[in-house]
Amino acid sequence: MIVLFTDFGNHDPYVGQVKARLEEHAPGQQVVDLLHQAPDYNAHAGAHLIAAFAPTFPPGTVFMCVVDPGVGTERSGTVILAGGRWFVGPDNGLLSIVSARNRDSRIWHINWQPEGASSTFHGRDIFAVIAALVAKGEFPADKLEEKPRLNVEFDKEDLDRVIYIDHFGNAWTGIRGAGLPKSTRIMARGGEFKHAESFGFVGKGEGFWFVNSVGLLELAINRGSAAEKLGIKLGDVVQVFRPN
Amino acid sequence: MIVLFTDFGNHDPYVGQVKARLEEHAPGQQVVDLLHQAPDYNAHAGAHLIAAFAPTFPPGTVFMCVVDPGVGTERSGTVILAGGRWFVGPDNGLLSIVSARNRDSRIWHINWQPEGASSTFHGRDIFAVIAALVAKGEFPADKLEEKPRLNVEFDKEDLDRVIYIDHFGNAWTGIRGAGLPKSTRIMARGGEFKHAESFGFVGKGEGFWFVNSVGLLELAINRGSAAEKLGIKLGDVVQVFRPN
Amino acid sequence: MIVLFTDFGNHDPYVGQVKARLEEHAPGQQVVDLLHQAPDYNAHAGAHLIAAFAPTFPPGTVFMCVVDPGVGTERSGTVILAGGRWFVGPDNGLLSIVSARNRDSRIWHINWQPEGASSTFHGRDIFAVIAALVAKGEFPADKLEEKPRLNVEFDKEDLDRVIYIDHFGNAWTGIRGAGLPKSTRIMARGGEFKHAESFGFVGKGEGFWFVNSVGLLELAINRGSAAEKLGIKLGDVVQVFRPN
Repeated sequence: MIVLFTDFGNHDPYVGQVKARLEEHAPGQQVVDLLHQAPDYNAHAGAHLIAAFAPTFPPGTVFMCVVDPGVGTERSGTVILAGGRWFVGPDNGLLSIVSARNRDSRIWHINWQPEGASSTFHGRDIFAVIAALVAKGEFPADKLEEKPRLNVEFDKEDLDRVIYIDHFGNAWTGIRGAGLPKSTRIMARGGEFKHAESFGFVGKGEGFWFVNSVGLLELAINRGSAAEKLGIKLGDVVQVFRPN
Repeated sequence: MIVLFTDFGNHDPYVGQVKARLEEHAPGQQVVDLLHQAPDYNAHAGAHLIAAFAPTFPPGTVFMCVVDPGVGTERSGTVILAGGRWFVGPDNGLLSIVSARNRDSRIWHINWQPEGASSTFHGRDIFAVIAALVAKGEFPADKLEEKPRLNVEFDKEDLDRVIYIDHFGNAWTGIRGAGLPKSTRIMARGGEFKHAESFGFVGKGEGFWFVNSVGLLELAINRGSAAEKLGIKLGDVVQVFRPN
Repeated sequence: MIVLFTDFGNHDPYVGQVKARLEEHAPGQQVVDLLHQAPDYNAHAGAHLIAAFAPTFPPGTVFMCVVDPGVGTERSGTVILAGGRWFVGPDNGLLSIVSARNRDSRIWHINWQPEGASSTFHGRDIFAVIAALVAKGEFPADKLEEKPRLNVEFDKEDLDRVIYIDHFGNAWTGIRGAGLPKSTRIMARGGEFKHAESFGFVGKGEGFWFVNSVGLLELAINRGSAAEKLGIKLGDVVQVFRPN
């Protein structure tokens, strides 16, 4: 299975071109759109999201990840094997957290570019081809060079910020929820959030935090938009008050 | 074929997670995205939409339907066989109209939950698994219990309200158009709509009603947005003036 | 491979109905969503986009293209074979440029309509069925009639206007970039754009033009929205100042 994680947008003709290229190079391969509205230009938020999503997919999954404002410049492309899953994308930090959180990570530099490749669409012309080859089990050793580490690495610890806001207005943070006591209180944009298991356990319009389906701490308002009501924005700092 | 009808949104990383789960449990199964912007939290509008869509799909189709503000609380999950098609989703009324409009409906309660299921994403952890099993012909009898009726039932008659607005600004109503005389006039938000067969039969900027491609009465403005021009909103009452 | 190019929108339940119909008539056929937010009602912009996209897909690809404000009126449906690729859609100019730019084009009129076809959704009821048959190699000669030319034809030369704006705010023009000197300057909405190879080669917030991944001249601002910053809109005239 090839999983796509990009900031190409769901409305634009970019994802379709990538899929056509995948189908050319790996006919019949299953392709799943995970996210195409990753925060624009924001490899940092993307890196935390990818690290959270990865373990919820089966081993062998190939992630093609593109948030790539430096496309066409000197930044490298990379292939990573981490925790039994593959990741293909730019070496701009985007894949550094999932790599750092797995002790067994192996890293390759992509040293190949097809003739006539576009300067602005490596997703289609380079990463899709590499991902297709990996997915169908034809590891493209001739297009890669193993190396000890990535060029760009982000801090692998939790990020106390909002890294994604969904269409309901729920705010995902870069904080992993495992082990967080239920009496923990969270503050964001002046609003306070207590824990609840799910939406139906708090009143209509009431805020709460929960550990979401990929293990991240998420802020929500039952039947309302936390983003709109409190003005929560991408990148906002989130304060965590653990019980004494 | 598995058909998805949800309020997960097209931009968020929810649909992709569901599809990966479907692919794990029913590899190679065809999955069609019908609607992921069903009115948020609005099981009532969703129920009328599902009932209208169902007959336009071939028998044997498995619909996974999720508009589920009560996820994680005591509300049940259900499987329904109605008119030769399968429906999997929450027992909160969402599937009650398609069930009530088919005399042969059979209803099962889902009494299974996998270990480690998320409290907020039963679509991925429960309904996708059940839908996958049904779709590949492995009816999960061990996870279900037949019962005579749903816990939550909506009125199965037409709903004289706007239940969906598309990106053109056309307003779908919950009124079935079959048998409605062409001289019927419709009023909504102070605007009057007469019948026309299609867009090109009225002037630019002119409003009209027609029976849409799933049999519902729909209000539109040729090359314009009925929603914007008249301020039509989801839930608006629609008045039907049949000829004497 | 069937490629979809429409103005059906990504949020509405239209694309899913088309895909279900394709699956019924061409089971297992690969279907790729290229664009569902083609400018509404705008067959002219669509025609230039289709002509630019077509050569980037492999021969044998079947494009189903629907931007069809005249649906249900007397306008015809058409099938075109041009440059080894197939195109199915309305004869309203939308397919005329890709047809005119290929000397070997063959054109058929669709003279078939299934019983009970919707007046407003020929995409599902007519074009999807024809496209499915063509894609699986069962050319539907009984439903078609060859003819020498299309009813509606647009000028096949470049269009000096903005024909698409993506979610980053980048503006695509109808001007083919091949052979355009790099010292060419472009003016749009009072802003001037010089050439750069890609985003990372200009400063943050700086505008530039480049030849995009389908060969069209595109205007962009690095890490910003050209559309928002300069107020560029669909249809805006673009001035091209070639060097002396």
